[in-house]
Amino acid sequence: MSTPNLETITSLCKRRGFIYQGSEVYGGLSGTWDYGPLGVILKRNIMNLWWKMFVEDREDMYGVDAAILMNQKVWQASGHVETFVDPLCEDTVTKKRYRTDHILKDNGVDPTGMTMAQMDAAIVENKIQSPEKNPLSPSRTFNMMFTTHVGPVADENSISYLRPETAQGIFTNFKNVVDSFYPDLPFGIAQQGKAFRNEISPRDFVFRSREFEQMEIEYFVDPADWEELFEEWRLRIHEWFELLGLPKENVHELEVPDEDRAHYSKRTIDFEFDFPHGKDELLGMAYRTDFDLMNIQNKSNKSMEYTVKGTNTKFVPHVIEPSFGVERALMAVLCAAYKEDTSGDEPRMYLALSSHLAPYRFCVSPLLKNKPELVEKAREVFKTLKAKYGNVTWDDNGNIGKRYRKQDEIGTPHCVVIDFDTLEDGTVTVRDRDTTEQKRVKIEDIQV
Amino acid sequence: MSTPNLETITSLCKRRGFIYQGSEVYGGLSGTWDYGPLGVILKRNIMNLWWKMFVEDREDMYGVDAAILMNQKVWQASGHVETFVDPLCEDTVTKKRYRTDHILKDNGVDPTGMTMAQMDAAIVENKIQSPEKNPLSPSRTFNMMFTTHVGPVADENSISYLRPETAQGIFTNFKNVVDSFYPDLPFGIAQQGKAFRNEISPRDFVFRSREFEQMEIEYFVDPADWEELFEEWRLRIHEWFELLGLPKENVHELEVPDEDRAHYSKRTIDFEFDFPHGKDELLGMAYRTDFDLMNIQNKSNKSMEYTVKGTNTKFVPHVIEPSFGVERALMAVLCAAYKEDTSGDEPRMYLALSSHLAPYRFCVSPLLKNKPELVEKAREVFKTLKAKYGNVTWDDNGNIGKRYRKQDEIGTPHCVVIDFDTLEDGTVTVRDRDTTEQKRVKIEDIQV
Repeated sequence: MSTPNLETITSLCKRRGFIYQGSEVYGGLSGTWDYGPLGVILKRNIMNLWWKMFVEDREDMYGVDAAILMNQKVWQASGHVETFVDPLCEDTVTKKRYRTDHILKDNGVDPTGMTMAQMDAAIVENKIQSPEKNPLSPSRTFNMMFTTHVGPVADENSISYLRPETAQGIFTNFKNVVDSFYPDLPFGIAQQGKAFRNEISPRDFVFRSREFEQMEIEYFVDPADWEELFEEWRLRIHEWFELLGLPKENVHELEVPDEDRAHYSKRTIDFEFDFPHGKDELLGMAYRTDFDLMNIQNKSNKSMEYTVKGTNTKFVPHVIEPSFGVERALMAVLCAAYKEDTSGDEPRMYLALSSHLAPYRFCVSPLLKNKPELVEKAREVFKTLKAKYGNVTWDDNGNIGKRYRKQDEIGTPHCVVIDFDTLEDGTVTVRDRDTTEQKRVKIEDIQV
Repeated sequence: MSTPNLETITSLCKRRGFIYQGSEVYGGLSGTWDYGPLGVILKRNIMNLWWKMFVEDREDMYGVDAAILMNQKVWQASGHVETFVDPLCEDTVTKKRYRTDHILKDNGVDPTGMTMAQMDAAIVENKIQSPEKNPLSPSRTFNMMFTTHVGPVADENSISYLRPETAQGIFTNFKNVVDSFYPDLPFGIAQQGKAFRNEISPRDFVFRSREFEQMEIEYFVDPADWEELFEEWRLRIHEWFELLGLPKENVHELEVPDEDRAHYSKRTIDFEFDFPHGKDELLGMAYRTDFDLMNIQNKSNKSMEYTVKGTNTKFVPHVIEPSFGVERALMAVLCAAYKEDTSGDEPRMYLALSSHLAPYRFCVSPLLKNKPELVEKAREVFKTLKAKYGNVTWDDNGNIGKRYRKQDEIGTPHCVVIDFDTLEDGTVTVRDRDTTEQKRVKIEDIQV
């Protein structure tokens, strides 16, 4: 994979209707992004593929879809109110605020594992200034949860947060799922949905945004089995990357060392990908022990114990958590698919998306738009393919070269063109996106 | 349809894992609901059906998925900051607040079309008290949008709202979609996604909640064509109700009279349904003229004009808006499907969901759990059906009668039971949910 640069991907996404800046018409809202027509299809394809692989096709998985607004006790118990904070420092002249760890990174200092005091010391020691070249204040903490109030009175009691992760919507429903279904251990609960973090410096396109979509699994296990099942999930995750078409050499496992892991985690693997802005986290998997369910049990006074069927053995299950970000998956898919082809007369760019991810499997065209007999035949072929495959598009704009260029850029694997020979012998031209090869194929033999 | 009462539906939903109260383990958060494993499937089935019918299967529709957090200018321009308000009155003793229109309705006074002053007068005139039998204060307005702040500083400039409707995410992307795709008029942009309203008195199960999911279409038309296309959409909406299995006699069209329509709407139809709490709005369709695009044009100083292809004719398109609520559709589907059957020895309850909506099409069981040869054969049948249909479930808990009762309650059309005859002659028992009839069928002949 030759990693494209961020601007190339961003501008392709806007031009071709994959992703637009959020609230763009009013000057934008930093850290938010709107999916356009093709982005919606690609996102749905990724999310449905995940749901099929990790929920529908398995018998040990249960889906939930919890509300984004939750009782504030959820975030008190989980520790987010107290500890979900970032260190911020301030440009002492402009009063603009920055994440201290980002300022350090941008100045070549690795902040991994540093306390806030250590970061401040590193700023002083390295004589680091703000991007506007002014002195920086010492850091203070800033909670990354968005706050709102539920009900008619805005006070302490009515505070609620936009969930910063979907995971807690799963943990809080653990007992509900057990009561309704009583599944055998190990079993998982999965959720897809929006999460929100008030990032101070959203950046790198959709990689770090304020509103994003997660796909999370909490897999409940007997603590005796965690190592084996953790390994099992590690393998499943690599299968997922294969389904996404990510080249093996661009995916890296980072075994998170003791000092950098959350205190409740006994093992964490960050799966990193070679993004345009550098190697960065694509998804994470953590063994969270019984930390979350014990928190809920202690704070809610409700038992989170699971009774093994037909026995008196009771315990609070432990948890393995594979946590996927939709936007990061989508961005990795786009980067991996991005190709520049300079072998022909004119350089061309195409997205080598596999057919189960591409917004459209086929584009159907009449060679000429002003020949009714070609258009009629082409409509017939279009309808047949659409009935069979669903995601098929029609294009009769401009000349055929322009259409190919467009379909290349949006990743359509095959263009089917109806010409005068079609009327004679029932064959069409099928043009391959990756090789640009054109073949004559009988209409009934067109295949993905 | 014999409308079930609200408690029956609510308790069925909880017991069988369709819908739980939001944040229940911490005492709940009023007006929020969490979908359990079966609710997620039913909701996905409804939403995917909608997407297929209104987006994928049409060539004039474009999907978007805009961010929930938008620049506050969106809601200033749309009028929501100023006018998206409810009248609230206060119990002068307990200080609890109520929606004045709800208080009137609950006391048999129809508030439709009343100004706030008229409502207050009606309270006095009818000597209406609070539910706790205390005097009520005069009303004041309360904005129903949830407020938050984006970025490190919480001030006027950083205010943002949780979108109270998805529609504005479509209008603000109108120009983006036209620039990327240049579709012919009429065309539509569709979106599914969460919306939030700070309801003072959330009630009637998921009917009126604070967080809900919308499916909205803005259909952009030449104003000369609006009446014809409005009628076209009216018919499509009835087709949608048929797909959902809603009995014709329980769906009612309310032609909203002039004095009750929003000022920008020239025609609105409310499609009402006989819910357990009474006849109430299931979805609405409005002809919104060019109100929204003109607002954006005026406030953003960007042209929202559309140029008809190959001509110099330019105008701001008008809009027909069919607006669907997912929860209300789901609730209507559950109510319409709910049946009590007292014809047999024991009364039984079942959900007569059509097979494209039911969480599972088939349940496969071995007659006896402790006979390995039955279990093995049953697993074989289960795998075959699951590979073919996807949504197939396995149940070997309890006796066969108990399994039937459970599958009836979750709406599984067919239970397939493998017994000793299966091993002999390759036939299974297929039991029909609606008639309870059992037939012997060859494994290869099992059909939806």
